[in-house]
Amino acid sequence: MANNKLANRVSSISSFTPPLSKGERESKPNLVCAVDLGGTNLRAANIDCEGKIRDRLKFKTPQTDNPEEIVSAIACAVAQCSSHAEQRHQTIQAVSVVVPGSVNAATGLVVNAPNVPAIIGFDLTSALASELKRSILIENDANAAAVGELWKGAARGHRTIVCFTLGTGVGGGVILNGELWRGIDGTGGEIGHISIEPFGGVQCNCGNFGCLEVYGSATALVRMTRERLEQYSGSQLDTIARDDLTAEKLFEAALAGDVLARSMFEKLGIYLGIAIANIVNTLNPEMIVIGGGVSAAFDLFAPSAREEMARRAFPVPAARCQIVKAECGDDAGLLGGALLASQNCLR
Amino acid sequence: MANNKLANRVSSISSFTPPLSKGERESKPNLVCAVDLGGTNLRAANIDCEGKIRDRLKFKTPQTDNPEEIVSAIACAVAQCSSHAEQRHQTIQAVSVVVPGSVNAATGLVVNAPNVPAIIGFDLTSALASELKRSILIENDANAAAVGELWKGAARGHRTIVCFTLGTGVGGGVILNGELWRGIDGTGGEIGHISIEPFGGVQCNCGNFGCLEVYGSATALVRMTRERLEQYSGSQLDTIARDDLTAEKLFEAALAGDVLARSMFEKLGIYLGIAIANIVNTLNPEMIVIGGGVSAAFDLFAPSAREEMARRAFPVPAARCQIVKAECGDDAGLLGGALLASQNCLR
Repeated sequence: MANNKLANRVSSISSFTPPLSKGERESKPNLVCAVDLGGTNLRAANIDCEGKIRDRLKFKTPQTDNPEEIVSAIACAVAQCSSHAEQRHQTIQAVSVVVPGSVNAATGLVVNAPNVPAIIGFDLTSALASELKRSILIENDANAAAVGELWKGAARGHRTIVCFTLGTGVGGGVILNGELWRGIDGTGGEIGHISIEPFGGVQCNCGNFGCLEVYGSATALVRMTRERLEQYSGSQLDTIARDDLTAEKLFEAALAGDVLARSMFEKLGIYLGIAIANIVNTLNPEMIVIGGGVSAAFDLFAPSAREEMARRAFPVPAARCQIVKAECGDDAGLLGGALLASQNCLR
Repeated sequence: MANNKLANRVSSISSFTPPLSKGERESKPNLVCAVDLGGTNLRAANIDCEGKIRDRLKFKTPQTDNPEEIVSAIACAVAQCSSHAEQRHQTIQAVSVVVPGSVNAATGLVVNAPNVPAIIGFDLTSALASELKRSILIENDANAAAVGELWKGAARGHRTIVCFTLGTGVGGGVILNGELWRGIDGTGGEIGHISIEPFGGVQCNCGNFGCLEVYGSATALVRMTRERLEQYSGSQLDTIARDDLTAEKLFEAALAGDVLARSMFEKLGIYLGIAIANIVNTLNPEMIVIGGGVSAAFDLFAPSAREEMARRAFPVPAARCQIVKAECGDDAGLLGGALLASQNCLR
C-alpha cells in the first residue's frame, strides 16, 4: 500500500532502458504500445526505446455510455499494433493508455473524464488488464504530454518543468527534479484550474469561476472574441458568422494582421502569464512548456505571457524560467505514456 | 555542482539521527543551535534530537546597513548557546540560521530579505562559517516553519503538505513526499505572492498586484478594516483611532462579537481559500497548515477558507486536503532549521 501510494505520487523520468541484453535487443527490439484516448479520436502507436514511433493507428472513439465499448476499442487498437510489431519480429513490452481526465495511477480508477464520460469512476486499468492479459499503465493526457516533452521535446535535458496544454480546455503536467508530480490522489497538475479572475470571472466547467481554462483555451479565445466583435467593426472576423467562428479562423486572421484577432491572442497571453507567475513563485521551475492546439499561435501570445510573468513573479525565478513552445505536437502524450509504461514495467 | 543543485532543490525530511553511538548519545547528547533572524528580534535555541528546546535566547536584531553587524550578532548568539551547552557537557553538532527572505541554500546567498535589508545579496553562509569556524545551514523562515510543523507540529506523520505563514507578510513552505521543495534557485514556496485579485487588486511590496499577501496578512487585515470602517458605524473599532488599529485589536473585537471585525477575518478566509484551491488543484497535497501570528484567529477564518477552497478546487483533492492550524507557534522555524541543519551535517 505504501509503495502504491508512492507510485501514485511520483514517477521518475529517466531514459527508457529495456530489460533485455544487448544481443537480444538488437535482434528483437522492445516496443511500447501507447494509446491516446481522446474525446473524438483514439490513436495508438508502437514506440521504441529511442522514442521513435514505428506504427500509427487512428480510430474514432466510440460515442457511448458503456465503458466496455471503450475497453474493446482500446484492446482492438493494441491488438493491431501488436500484429504490426510481430510482422517485424518485434515484441510489445508494455502498454500505456493516456486519457483526457484525472486518473489515479495507483488504483487505476478514472476519477474524471468530461470528454469520455463512459469511463468516469471506471476501473479502466483492471478492465484492460483483464482483456489484454497484461499490465497496463493509465495516465492523464497532460501529465503524459509533459513527460513526452521532457523526454523527446522542448524540455530535453531539463529536470523541473511545468507543461501547459492549451486545447479545448487547459491541462497541465508538473515534473519536479525529474519526477512526474501526480499528487496524493493522482489529481495534481490541474493548472488549467488556477483561478486568475476569481471575482466576477467566467464560470468554468469545473464549477469554479475565473479558471485559466476559461481564458486560455481555444474555447475561451472564441468566446472572448465574440464578446468583443461589436467593438471592432473593421475586423475581418465580422465576415464570419458568430457561430462559425473557430480558434483556427482567429489564428488565420491574426496572421493576416487583423487587430481584433491579434489582441485576443495577446489577451490570452496576459492570462496565461498570470498563471505562470503563480507557478514560478510557488515552484521556481526551469522551464514552462506550452503545448496543445493553441500553441500553434505561440508567437502571437508568448510575448505578452512573458511580459506578464516577469511583471508579477519574483525577479530571480522569473529570470530563471524559460517559456517555450512544445515540440512533440500530438505525439507528446503517446511518447510520455510510452516512457512511463516502460519504466513501470521495469519496477 | 550537480549535487549542490540537488541540495538546493530538495531536502529530505526524516527523523534526526545523531551519528553517535547510543552510549555516546546518552553521555553527550548532540544539539543543534538554531537561530531565527527576524526583522525585530534575533532568537536562538539549542534543540536536541527529539526536538526538545533546551536553551533559549532573544536579542534585538541590529538595525543596520552593515551585514557584518548582523554576522556578529548571530555569532554572539551561537557562542552563548554553545556556552550553555558546554555547561551541561553537551556539544553543538550543527548551526542553522533562518532568515525572513529568499535564500539560495546551495550558494548561501541571501536573495532578498525586505525586513533585514543589510543582508540582501550577502553571502551570509560564508561569512558565518568563517566567523564561527564551522558549516552553517541558511534557510528561508517559512520553509523552515513548514519543516518544523512536519517534524513536531500539526503535520506529524504526513509527507506532502503546504504551510502558509500569515504574519506581517505571507510566507510559505512546500513539502512534497517528505522533501522540502526549494525550487531551482531556492526561491520556491512564495505562495504569499500567488495573485488572487490580479486585476484591480492592491499592489504588493513585491511589485505584483493582488497577491495573497495584501489580503491574507496582519497588515492586510488592518488595511481592509480601515477601508470598511465608515460602512460599519456601530463597530467597537470606531472607538480606536485609525492609526492605532492593529491586527491584535481586531482579533479582540472579533472575539467580543464585533460584526465588522468578524467579517474581516471571514474575508481573509475567502482570499486564503482561493490561494489554497490553486495549490490543491496544482499539487494535490494531504494537508494545508496555517501558521504565523494571524493563525491565532484560525477559528475565525478557517470556516470561510475551507468553504471557498471546496467551492473552487476539484472534489477529490479538496476532500483529501485538511486545513489545520499550526502547532509549533514561534518555534516552528527554529525546529525546522534544527532538523535541516542536522540532516545537512550528516550528508
